[in-house]
Amino acid sequence: MRKKQGILIIADGLGDRPIRKLDNKTPLEYAKTPNLDFLASRGMCGNVYPYEPGVRVGTDVGHLLIFGYDPKKVYSGRGPIEAYSGGLELLPGDIAFRGNFATVDDTFKVIDRRAQRITKGTKELAEAINGLKLDDGTTVLVKELTAHRAAIVLRGENLSANITTTDPGTAEEGKNLVRPEPLDDSEASKRTAELLWELTNKIYSILSSHSINKEREKEDKLPANMIIVRGPGKKPSMHTISEQYDLKCGCVAGDLTIHGIAKMTGMDSFMSSSFTGGFDTDVLGKARMGIKLLKEGYDWVVIHVKAPDLAGHDNLPDKKVESAEKIDGLIGLLIDNLDLDNCYISFTADHSTPCEVRDHTGDPVPTIISGGDVRKDGISQAGESYFSKGSLHNLTANDIFMLQMDLMGFTKKYGA
Amino acid sequence: MRKKQGILIIADGLGDRPIRKLDNKTPLEYAKTPNLDFLASRGMCGNVYPYEPGVRVGTDVGHLLIFGYDPKKVYSGRGPIEAYSGGLELLPGDIAFRGNFATVDDTFKVIDRRAQRITKGTKELAEAINGLKLDDGTTVLVKELTAHRAAIVLRGENLSANITTTDPGTAEEGKNLVRPEPLDDSEASKRTAELLWELTNKIYSILSSHSINKEREKEDKLPANMIIVRGPGKKPSMHTISEQYDLKCGCVAGDLTIHGIAKMTGMDSFMSSSFTGGFDTDVLGKARMGIKLLKEGYDWVVIHVKAPDLAGHDNLPDKKVESAEKIDGLIGLLIDNLDLDNCYISFTADHSTPCEVRDHTGDPVPTIISGGDVRKDGISQAGESYFSKGSLHNLTANDIFMLQMDLMGFTKKYGA
Repeated sequence: MRKKQGILIIADGLGDRPIRKLDNKTPLEYAKTPNLDFLASRGMCGNVYPYEPGVRVGTDVGHLLIFGYDPKKVYSGRGPIEAYSGGLELLPGDIAFRGNFATVDDTFKVIDRRAQRITKGTKELAEAINGLKLDDGTTVLVKELTAHRAAIVLRGENLSANITTTDPGTAEEGKNLVRPEPLDDSEASKRTAELLWELTNKIYSILSSHSINKEREKEDKLPANMIIVRGPGKKPSMHTISEQYDLKCGCVAGDLTIHGIAKMTGMDSFMSSSFTGGFDTDVLGKARMGIKLLKEGYDWVVIHVKAPDLAGHDNLPDKKVESAEKIDGLIGLLIDNLDLDNCYISFTADHSTPCEVRDHTGDPVPTIISGGDVRKDGISQAGESYFSKGSLHNLTANDIFMLQMDLMGFTKKYGA
Repeated sequence: MRKKQGILIIADGLGDRPIRKLDNKTPLEYAKTPNLDFLASRGMCGNVYPYEPGVRVGTDVGHLLIFGYDPKKVYSGRGPIEAYSGGLELLPGDIAFRGNFATVDDTFKVIDRRAQRITKGTKELAEAINGLKLDDGTTVLVKELTAHRAAIVLRGENLSANITTTDPGTAEEGKNLVRPEPLDDSEASKRTAELLWELTNKIYSILSSHSINKEREKEDKLPANMIIVRGPGKKPSMHTISEQYDLKCGCVAGDLTIHGIAKMTGMDSFMSSSFTGGFDTDVLGKARMGIKLLKEGYDWVVIHVKAPDLAGHDNLPDKKVESAEKIDGLIGLLIDNLDLDNCYISFTADHSTPCEVRDHTGDPVPTIISGGDVRKDGISQAGESYFSKGSLHNLTANDIFMLQMDLMGFTKKYGA
């Protein structure tokens, strides 16, 4: 079967709705995007549902869908992804959580769920707990992530992810940590809930007396004396993309969570200090790295840009327009440096984050598959309202993955 | 319920992509097709996925989908279809293979996997093995098919299709036949793998000394002293179309595999010596036979034309244009001779075979459902890019089958 390369740009949370101050256009429609318009005119377009119409997904599930997975089969919580993003190798049976370094008082009332967004010293704090043995021999692994975040893993026999956690709720200061409860009648769930509470007490005891926190108190900072955990999950049983389709995949991203998903799905993931995961990220640097990976022989390269999602959550339409235009510049660099006859260029988002909603919604996401021999559908302008007339309209993220694999020549024939 | 007749034309592998030398049109778009344009203007159009977006299917699976079946439930390999195409009646438990008469040396190295595309004497060679009893009493059935091809059936107790076969790979001369292996731990799979190897040895022994091969050697031809087998499968447990929808179906085709699928799905199948399965097939003869069957009272008639697929595999865009125009002539004869108020005319393909890819792809296939009271969708030209705006766009082959059954009045009401 003839093989070609492909590159996919994921504009996180880009999908939006008409906004009054943008002349009732969406940010993508309002933005000047000559390169995306070019891609649209040479390919297939549509608004694509991440999962099913009206179902809103998180960044993690959205990316698993873009990478061709059924989240019902491989997603059991954010914990495992954060473990991968921190470089922790999960074993079957491990229970992984995502966590925040936080400040609590001695009754476990939450004073600051992010310990004043602590950035320094978390490595030492994580190391103080990493390797801890609980009373029954269960091992605790901890790895600091970006800012106040951390990954926590329980490694032992007969553990369960089907429990509630200590988290009293996001952005809820003043409430007490919650004693974990099993969510089913199994011995494993009862035991794991108790182990998590034992761990919570031990974390408080270890971190309260840690020198990093003594320093912080001297500087009138709140101590990071707790890790609040949530999102328990097990290592999923899944094939990597490379195993399933026999191709080499690379992922270029600034956001650690995306690196976690990339590692979990077997992609090689690439980072640079100029990829910040913020508005100031080096989009052209990402394009250059993507081009380099293709030249080095990667079959499929994915480039992720977080900025549009941040603008959506903060209701900053102008920033969202600006990030769409920056991404258009990234696309321009790809068009200038890649041979469209040998490399398909695709574009999508993991979900919509409409500015006025300030959260992920189930709206379908603007999507293009473009390149040499792709069928054209007559759309020549990038934007949600134009794409509703496109040939990919109402397909799903999984469909778009399969269409790319098929164009590139990596699918197996069903039948003979 | 009011009943009407229907006829469906299947242009095998017709779907394609824009081709430079055809002014960036697909062969169907480039071809002059006044009759298909007429059908389009009086019906519903769309590019339809054979199975799911991006999934490429073989001719066998593609036709099962067009005939309304779920291949996951009824398809277990090409073997059973070839057995049906040769007129072998499968019993539950039989394992059927497709096979090639081939030339091997005494170490079972493949000298020519088609025995110089042998055409004469295969009936006698098949008869020499047909009815053979293996050591444990398992019976072997063999029936010659077109040219070097044959169907092989193992009939006995506790057999399994979950084995590898003797085939070292298509188009691979110089390799040795492979000793079959079970693909699971069952006794049945282990036994069947051994039986197939026993059969392979017996075939060599019987055919090597056969008079047909002695003749061939005298004429300096390679002996057809082996049958290489592949595609093992069991008789599927399935209802015929007639049983499910209480209608009488006929299939007109030149290709034996299509006859096999037709018989397996309970259609009466019709052949004529002028239906060659090649570029020179008698398309107008097929139209006349279809019209005759409808006049005789068949409710649903299917006409299959193989030529576009051959042009796709051989990257012959002009030939594909020519075959589309010939099929347009076939459609013209139908339009002239059928009352569109009483007989729907539909048009589709089993899969796309883009010339430049030279293989089946997962691209959706151009499809029309036309006739008296069918809703119109404003499309008046036949072609993949026009059809992306049609009302059937992004449906599946199973959907198109159900729409035809419903228009014709053969579906049951769900609810009351």
